[in-house]
Amino acid sequence: MSTVAPVDTVPADARVQAVFADIRAKRGSDFINHFWRYLAFDPALLESTWAEVKRVMATPSALDPLTKEMLYIAVSVANGCGYCVHSHTAAARAKGMTPAQHAELLSIIGLAARTNHLATALQVPVDEVFDHDCGVA
Amino acid sequence: MSTVAPVDTVPADARVQAVFADIRAKRGSDFINHFWRYLAFDPALLESTWAEVKRVMATPSALDPLTKEMLYIAVSVANGCGYCVHSHTAAARAKGMTPAQHAELLSIIGLAARTNHLATALQVPVDEVFDHDCGVA
Amino acid sequence: MSTVAPVDTVPADARVQAVFADIRAKRGSDFINHFWRYLAFDPALLESTWAEVKRVMATPSALDPLTKEMLYIAVSVANGCGYCVHSHTAAARAKGMTPAQHAELLSIIGLAARTNHLATALQVPVDEVFDHDCGVA
Amino acid sequence: MSTVAPVDTVPADARVQAVFADIRAKRGSDFINHFWRYLAFDPALLESTWAEVKRVMATPSALDPLTKEMLYIAVSVANGCGYCVHSHTAAARAKGMTPAQHAELLSIIGLAARTNHLATALQVPVDEVFDHDCGVA
Amino acid sequence: MSTVAPVDTVPADARVQAVFADIRAKRGSDFINHFWRYLAFDPALLESTWAEVKRVMATPSALDPLTKEMLYIAVSVANGCGYCVHSHTAAARAKGMTPAQHAELLSIIGLAARTNHLATALQVPVDEVFDHDCGVA
Amino acid sequence: MSTVAPVDTVPADARVQAVFADIRAKRGSDFINHFWRYLAFDPALLESTWAEVKRVMATPSALDPLTKEMLYIAVSVANGCGYCVHSHTAAARAKGMTPAQHAELLSIIGLAARTNHLATALQVPVDEVFDHDCGVA
Repeated sequence: MSTVAPVDTVPADARVQAVFADIRAKRGSDFINHFWRYLAFDPALLESTWAEVKRVMATPSALDPLTKEMLYIAVSVANGCGYCVHSHTAAARAKGMTPAQHAELLSIIGLAARTNHLATALQVPVDEVFDHDCGVA
Repeated sequence: MSTVAPVDTVPADARVQAVFADIRAKRGSDFINHFWRYLAFDPALLESTWAEVKRVMATPSALDPLTKEMLYIAVSVANGCGYCVHSHTAAARAKGMTPAQHAELLSIIGLAARTNHLATALQVPVDEVFDHDCGVA
Repeated sequence: MSTVAPVDTVPADARVQAVFADIRAKRGSDFINHFWRYLAFDPALLESTWAEVKRVMATPSALDPLTKEMLYIAVSVANGCGYCVHSHTAAARAKGMTPAQHAELLSIIGLAARTNHLATALQVPVDEVFDHDCGVA
Repeated sequence: MSTVAPVDTVPADARVQAVFADIRAKRGSDFINHFWRYLAFDPALLESTWAEVKRVMATPSALDPLTKEMLYIAVSVANGCGYCVHSHTAAARAKGMTPAQHAELLSIIGLAARTNHLATALQVPVDEVFDHDCGVA
Repeated sequence: MSTVAPVDTVPADARVQAVFADIRAKRGSDFINHFWRYLAFDPALLESTWAEVKRVMATPSALDPLTKEMLYIAVSVANGCGYCVHSHTAAARAKGMTPAQHAELLSIIGLAARTNHLATALQVPVDEVFDHDCGVA
Repeated sequence: MSTVAPVDTVPADARVQAVFADIRAKRGSDFINHFWRYLAFDPALLESTWAEVKRVMATPSALDPLTKEMLYIAVSVANGCGYCVHSHTAAARAKGMTPAQHAELLSIIGLAARTNHLATALQVPVDEVFDHDCGVA
């Protein structure tokens, strides 16, 4: 069940073809996962989303690839996106996440959720010392 | 504004005293941030929460301390907890988070939020290949 | 899988019958979608919910019917309600939403999610100029 | 800071006057809290919201008044509504919530948040035995 | 579909065996629901989660067992955890929740969600009288 | 209070200068709201976010500018972003949103929140007729 029909893995649209080819090249695999096939119902939406994913996730940067995937999982769990939890857990495993790291990731997510809710329930005022703001006129 | 009154930094209750002393010892600082002072309205709630935070966050483990703080920030942002975003951003900085890492953390959080919402809007079915389940009788 | 049993499309309860008849009359269709059949486990809950849906969504008003459905989708995506995303996307299509409008709706939802998370991560203080409050004594 | 201007406690609009009078009568107090004064920018929105609050919260029913307020707090915390957490915590206290009950409420909220996130992270399939659905044709 | 493989109901790991035995003893039933079997991929995570659930939910306390389950449902619905909604609705029924109580629980959850969103949309400032804070230096 | 320091409205960094100049040109106003000044702590993050906002929100498209702002508000409310609710409510007013449209927007957001929570609480299965999926091999 979905809200749009998926595009074929060998798409008719030239712009979709180009993005799928870039996904395959970047990943070194012929596989195109569902997210991209459904998003491809609109070539412009597919292009801008893939461009951002490539820029943020597939470019060497200040954080290592596994840490990036675990951060992605953390946000996806808190936002309740089942598809994203599945796809990024698979991606984290492919980048070397061990069962011990997976368990620890889940411990942190569970703990943060707990204290997030406690702080909200108490409406704790922010300590002055945590402010990084130098003032706005 | 808060929903309970904070406990003094020099608390009267012996159980609260013990937790505050442990927080100070573990952190090597006299400072007790608001979260603990408000949570201390109930000594048992304070004890169990601190025990879990200490176990998960302050024990050497499969993930390094800075990665743990960044994961905490990611969950706290997605859950909309302003206090937690403030306190864990400060903690991440204290553990060495650079401005470049902070910016990248935010890029990943923003990107994940975007694709989380897109996957939910499309109701993308999970690819079989992402399943790690060996079956439940 | 659900947490209550659905009521039949030809319900035994007179109050449920009346609501189902009104839904059919208002929509000009015999079809009763699952939401109402499950909600009907409690006639009073069914009645008050349908009354509100009819009042807000099916009465000529300051916003056109398609805009209303798209707003409904936007909230439902952000709240992670898969059922609602499905039913209101179908309703928006029935009211004329084009694929281009659907894609643009998703672009806005994705962008808003991204900047929502960024503003929360930065804890940006609200600009004075955005305040519409004339003061509360 | 708010997005609309509040209506005065002695409102000019007759419909707003009537709702404010009913709130005061129902509560046996002259105080009108901000929520109603801001919502009153639109008399129809004020009327329908107050009617629903009165029907659900202020009518003798299957759940006692304190339990209802604690459920309201639980939802408000999970939805991150600071105003609602404040107002309903005050209401629960006015209805007799003890510090011990408040602490236990927070423990349950924190625990549920933790296991909610864990179940989402694991994408645990629902046990057949939990299904209450008798089938939909 | 899940992100880890479930552990057998007759687990090989001694720590998992001990937790499963405790769950069975505490509940007076041989049944182990999926949540625990999936969480058991990491014995330490299983142990700490079960210990907290037992402490909060299965210990005589200031709130009765049915109220606790309904609070759990309220949080789980707001957090969008389908599994938790299923398992705790079943648990609430087992503890005597009537259809009338279930319907009222849903009415309160729905109403709170509505006013949570309204208060957020209006950005209503918290009334001074709701503050329980005695000041933090 | 914020987690980073804001950049001055006359920024030193050339890339930030360029983005601020483009914001001013696009809007025909000298005013730079806080979001951009805080995001500017990282020029690349500022550039990519502004580029996306400009592309989605400030380009003539299938949806009119006011509808787009109201959709932005809807998502921001559901995600609990106070800053975004403020800034986009101001933007919607600037684009002509009347008090009647604002009230109706809030009615729809409140109603959707209510039925989102009800559908999640009931775990309503999606009707086959809502599926737009043509099948994925």
